[in-house]
Amino acid sequence: MDIEAVRWAESGQALEIIDQTRLPEAEIRLQLDSAEATAEAIGSLRVRGAPAIGIAAALAYAVEAARAAPAGKAALRERLPRVYDVLVSARPTGVNLRWALDRMRGVAEGMPDAGAEAIAERLRAEATCILEEDRAMCRRIGQFGLPLLPENARVLTHCNAGALATGGIGTALAPIYMAHEAGQGVQVFADETRPLLQGSRLTAWELHRAGIAVTLVADVVAADLMRRGMIDLVIVGADRVAANGDVANKVGTYALSVLAKHHGIPFYVALPTSTLDTRCATGAGIPIEERAADEVRRGFGTLTAPSDVPVYAPAFDVTPAANITALITDAGVLFPPFDRAIAGLAADTETEPA
Amino acid sequence: MDIEAVRWAESGQALEIIDQTRLPEAEIRLQLDSAEATAEAIGSLRVRGAPAIGIAAALAYAVEAARAAPAGKAALRERLPRVYDVLVSARPTGVNLRWALDRMRGVAEGMPDAGAEAIAERLRAEATCILEEDRAMCRRIGQFGLPLLPENARVLTHCNAGALATGGIGTALAPIYMAHEAGQGVQVFADETRPLLQGSRLTAWELHRAGIAVTLVADVVAADLMRRGMIDLVIVGADRVAANGDVANKVGTYALSVLAKHHGIPFYVALPTSTLDTRCATGAGIPIEERAADEVRRGFGTLTAPSDVPVYAPAFDVTPAANITALITDAGVLFPPFDRAIAGLAADTETEPA
Repeated sequence: MDIEAVRWAESGQALEIIDQTRLPEAEIRLQLDSAEATAEAIGSLRVRGAPAIGIAAALAYAVEAARAAPAGKAALRERLPRVYDVLVSARPTGVNLRWALDRMRGVAEGMPDAGAEAIAERLRAEATCILEEDRAMCRRIGQFGLPLLPENARVLTHCNAGALATGGIGTALAPIYMAHEAGQGVQVFADETRPLLQGSRLTAWELHRAGIAVTLVADVVAADLMRRGMIDLVIVGADRVAANGDVANKVGTYALSVLAKHHGIPFYVALPTSTLDTRCATGAGIPIEERAADEVRRGFGTLTAPSDVPVYAPAFDVTPAANITALITDAGVLFPPFDRAIAGLAADTETEPA
Repeated sequence: MDIEAVRWAESGQALEIIDQTRLPEAEIRLQLDSAEATAEAIGSLRVRGAPAIGIAAALAYAVEAARAAPAGKAALRERLPRVYDVLVSARPTGVNLRWALDRMRGVAEGMPDAGAEAIAERLRAEATCILEEDRAMCRRIGQFGLPLLPENARVLTHCNAGALATGGIGTALAPIYMAHEAGQGVQVFADETRPLLQGSRLTAWELHRAGIAVTLVADVVAADLMRRGMIDLVIVGADRVAANGDVANKVGTYALSVLAKHHGIPFYVALPTSTLDTRCATGAGIPIEERAADEVRRGFGTLTAPSDVPVYAPAFDVTPAANITALITDAGVLFPPFDRAIAGLAADTETEPA
């Protein structure tokens, strides 16, 4: 597993991403040496997935600090707020983006007496920490999820919650990569995931590249696969999880949860605990973004519907906790009742030594 | 309603179709004056939908007869078998296509003593009959289905079982057109229907053109609409219906049936009785065609998946009778138990005067 969607460039003077807008046609690595270039890459979805975006922003923040430091502390203190603003505006709804940038800013502000080079050095270390923590988080999700996969498991997934969305081996795909590493046999059915086709463009690409058996299907085929007994379990990622275990994720997730329940197939959601939003009591409190009509009417450059026909295009849907078999987190697998399991996790975290 | 996907050209020397490969971009009518041109149009999906294909073949057969007749009876008798072969090969699995051609051939063969012009005249009348019977069939489905739609019904449909698939107002869309005609208010949600997007390219186009409120959705959005209480009923067409009421139809139909059942929403299948195949005891006996992988991998003219990733692409799936609220046929609405209702219908038909 060496995809590394976001990493340091060899020079150490830039970060490096896989340009996801060029997939699956070509695997192009881009070096980004400024906040502006990184913001452009985030805004145009060259780098995507909440964890990967947060990492990219943190690395870019450190890159900018290293560039400004030689000019002295005043120059650094002047540049960093601008860097923060440029990056945070790249994806205004990105929770991980803001979280990573706040963490970087906190480090810089916590060193009022340090010199410019020391601050830049410390920021570089902090960005590396954010990247490494994400990698470790992915592997923990993989380890906790692994026992849920039978030998030669046939897994259905939706959208992309894989290596391309994180600094490591992904969230929903982490147990799959670990099963493959362990040589226990695993086969994946990837929903293409309309309208933006993250399943075909990204998930099929990264699994295929990793040598894992993957079969691409149109979204409507999932139910047929289940009816034919070709699916042992479903694993998807999560955009946000409410205190009661309701999950907001890419539109289409809810349908899969109903279909899995109907066919007696386990339905798992993989997520870092940072995705838990205990301020939302239930999924009803999670706002759902609507996407542009032309993502459906002109999917990939071609007009495939009347140009002025109305479209309803929610980006996400909400899967009720009752449809979920377990939540696979980096702190362990949570089983129902989820409200208690999630509250317990929050309590553990609060009483943990810092 | 004046779409008329297949009709006589004004000259009477050709048939005229809407070139469905040009939709939704442009509404182009093509005149087809030979079996070869018609076979090309069928093979390249310029005309599609089982009833529409049968009608096109019948009209083309009559056109060829009219062209051959002036050269005398021998020329006519020589040409017609070739016409049959060219047309029947255009879509080898087309049940309606073969049925329509067998009917035309039967008429020709039933007139051993007639002259060439008389045969050609009779074939023209027979082709017109096939077209008019289809139009009447559509209206009967519409009339029988209409009472199932509440005032201001919000109907979800999948694929295209509309005017573009028939000589008239369609099958699944017939009750919707009738409700609109009756001014009782109706709103349609059209699944885009991957991989070939018949929902966005054809259903959204024809309803939009007819002034019926239609909203296009990606297939994965249907479940979310149901959960939000935005769907009153589902109506789909059928490719083939077994003796027990199991329905083979465009892949994705089965998922909708499970989702509708889960949400307590009526699920209707509209079909001409000619779609009943009582030789198939259950849906398990219906063969399912697999489509080319590139319909998914290069669906929009662009490569959207690794070019060599395996794809599972069934054209149809089977919806069990237990998930179906009623079958809307041109002979009336059938309710469960479908095996008895269908057997009763077959018995009625057998005892009917010819």
